[in-house]
Amino acid sequence: MTVIGLLTDFGYKDGYVGVMKGVMLAICPQAQLVDISHEVSPQGILEGVFVLRQAFSYFPPGAIFLTVIDPGVGTERKALAARVGQFAFVGPDNGVITPLLRWGQEKHLEAEIVILDQPRYWLPDVSTCFHGRDIFAPVAAYLAAGVPLGSMGSPTREVILLDLPAASPQPGGFQASVLFTDHFGNVVTNLQASEVQVGESLTVQIAGRRIHGMVRTFGERPPGTLIALADSSGYLAISLVQGNAARYLGVSAGDPVIIYLRQPG
Amino acid sequence: MTVIGLLTDFGYKDGYVGVMKGVMLAICPQAQLVDISHEVSPQGILEGVFVLRQAFSYFPPGAIFLTVIDPGVGTERKALAARVGQFAFVGPDNGVITPLLRWGQEKHLEAEIVILDQPRYWLPDVSTCFHGRDIFAPVAAYLAAGVPLGSMGSPTREVILLDLPAASPQPGGFQASVLFTDHFGNVVTNLQASEVQVGESLTVQIAGRRIHGMVRTFGERPPGTLIALADSSGYLAISLVQGNAARYLGVSAGDPVIIYLRQPG
Amino acid sequence: MTVIGLLTDFGYKDGYVGVMKGVMLAICPQAQLVDISHEVSPQGILEGVFVLRQAFSYFPPGAIFLTVIDPGVGTERKALAARVGQFAFVGPDNGVITPLLRWGQEKHLEAEIVILDQPRYWLPDVSTCFHGRDIFAPVAAYLAAGVPLGSMGSPTREVILLDLPAASPQPGGFQASVLFTDHFGNVVTNLQASEVQVGESLTVQIAGRRIHGMVRTFGERPPGTLIALADSSGYLAISLVQGNAARYLGVSAGDPVIIYLRQPG
Repeated sequence: MTVIGLLTDFGYKDGYVGVMKGVMLAICPQAQLVDISHEVSPQGILEGVFVLRQAFSYFPPGAIFLTVIDPGVGTERKALAARVGQFAFVGPDNGVITPLLRWGQEKHLEAEIVILDQPRYWLPDVSTCFHGRDIFAPVAAYLAAGVPLGSMGSPTREVILLDLPAASPQPGGFQASVLFTDHFGNVVTNLQASEVQVGESLTVQIAGRRIHGMVRTFGERPPGTLIALADSSGYLAISLVQGNAARYLGVSAGDPVIIYLRQPG
Repeated sequence: MTVIGLLTDFGYKDGYVGVMKGVMLAICPQAQLVDISHEVSPQGILEGVFVLRQAFSYFPPGAIFLTVIDPGVGTERKALAARVGQFAFVGPDNGVITPLLRWGQEKHLEAEIVILDQPRYWLPDVSTCFHGRDIFAPVAAYLAAGVPLGSMGSPTREVILLDLPAASPQPGGFQASVLFTDHFGNVVTNLQASEVQVGESLTVQIAGRRIHGMVRTFGERPPGTLIALADSSGYLAISLVQGNAARYLGVSAGDPVIIYLRQPG
Repeated sequence: MTVIGLLTDFGYKDGYVGVMKGVMLAICPQAQLVDISHEVSPQGILEGVFVLRQAFSYFPPGAIFLTVIDPGVGTERKALAARVGQFAFVGPDNGVITPLLRWGQEKHLEAEIVILDQPRYWLPDVSTCFHGRDIFAPVAAYLAAGVPLGSMGSPTREVILLDLPAASPQPGGFQASVLFTDHFGNVVTNLQASEVQVGESLTVQIAGRRIHGMVRTFGERPPGTLIALADSSGYLAISLVQGNAARYLGVSAGDPVIIYLRQPG
């Protein structure tokens, strides 16, 4: 029973995701379909990179990630399928594959990537604007059904890479930025929390506010307090206890965050 | 493993969909449940017709469509189950079944329709406001488990039909209207794109704006351009490249669209 | 095939629910995962109680309810798993278990509750802010896979109980309040509809408006009429026929509702 994890910017309203699931179950009835998110912001490729990066390693061996955030649909952008270690990827060549490839490099795993060019694994009629339904869903389902990756397309090593922007060290601290704001309003920065210490010496400056010290968890401060802490994927995050920090601070992805390792003067 | 596709206006917040799934899995544990949409606008029957029409043919043979958009719940409106070719339908008699019946007519398939009147296939207590849980979900699950349609109710041939409004030809073009605006803000009209040609001679007038020519796909124009193209279900659609055309134009379902086959004077 | 019903305040955007599903399917591939809701208001524990109360009894025997609404994550709040009759529960000790325990008391069923303290059933690395992924999802999956509850933790009988507030009788009627407003804008009160009668003698006062009489279902009054009726879970509810009563009245959970059993003077 192969798991296919779905990640798109399709939303839930129109039936587009349901159609892709219908296509997949017609090809591979025993696939186990798991929604990762369909509320990536429209055309939000970098957001897709972030969500896939947080999620993929928790999936069972053999999982296939069907990711369709596809502003370039119908143009010359390539369509990819790949295998990296125990995981597989299917989607447009837009950079969302990056977390899987970086993880593979770290683990010294072979990555096998193909450009999809075998229409016999697609739906018979391919539209110009919904390759999720017509190309990527069927390819993911055939992979789940055991069709070898190599028969789906031609090998390539050139794919678009899109790394999350990294925080940069500067005298006395780091120049960071907001990577993502989640459903709770937690503001995730691009600084690895392992670079800093829980305790009082740190100051985080964001949206004209300063947060002194870093806590281990929400419950250490009273409701309504702004806190800095390591979030569940290991990044430094800013939260408002029992509130929505992103809305309170008015910040969104890309906004600057400065981290002072000692109390600024 | 029978697929049941769910289409409702229940939203995701209240647990109503989860309850229907609990009911179905208690009756038919091996059913494969697929959400088509639960964000049809409240009481949006015509929207349900549109979404089902786009989706059903991509589902595997044997699929059952459980559709519950039910402003008439608890009144004399009839409850239906039907089989049309390889597909089945369960839901209130409100017109949402229409795309399946029209498809059956085109394919010269026999349609078998029953009015649900056999309470032994319902939950023991039937409320006056949630027949999705109490009648339709159990009936869909018993169908999935192999109970014959004919034992669920009494045959009928009279059901409500609700066809999507069609564009009308007029001198030099078509008088059309907006059928649906999707998650991306694509504005889907009721003109079959096969009636017109990709190319420069066409002009689309909508919300006081004119779009000249028709493209094959989004990537042919720069971000921020309004374009006309054939959408993934074959209708003429208006899109804003990497933007939200529906919001930009301020249009919604029912708004007029005029198509000139030649440059208007 | 064990059903695991998921109830959280995680939303659908971030991939948090998908990650929990990945974790569970890695441990118990044959689990059947059903979303009850992930749109409980952030930290909305009482809302979680309401949604679980409406839903649980419709699930198949053996169902496990994985409920994670967890403002106290990372603090001393306990982590629980429980079995009550044919159902099981996994989640933080925040009161959401209450409907299962009350139902068990009514049915004279033994409740077995443990405090989770056996890290061998958790993920190897436990974060301070996402116990849904690191503790609760794996425990639910091991339960689904047949690991005995007793091996997961230490027995307890002391858990937080959080009953929905009850309406109070007063001369000539009831002092009630709004429990919940649903996706359709139905305003669910905390008065059991069985306490009152369908008919004309009743008056409901809410947000400065009076509704005379109680109907059986929506279709008995024209669109745009405010009505009082018994909702699908047996509570008295106020609805606007084919409209959104909650928005129309401007009410939300906790707002007062007065029920007069006879026409007030």
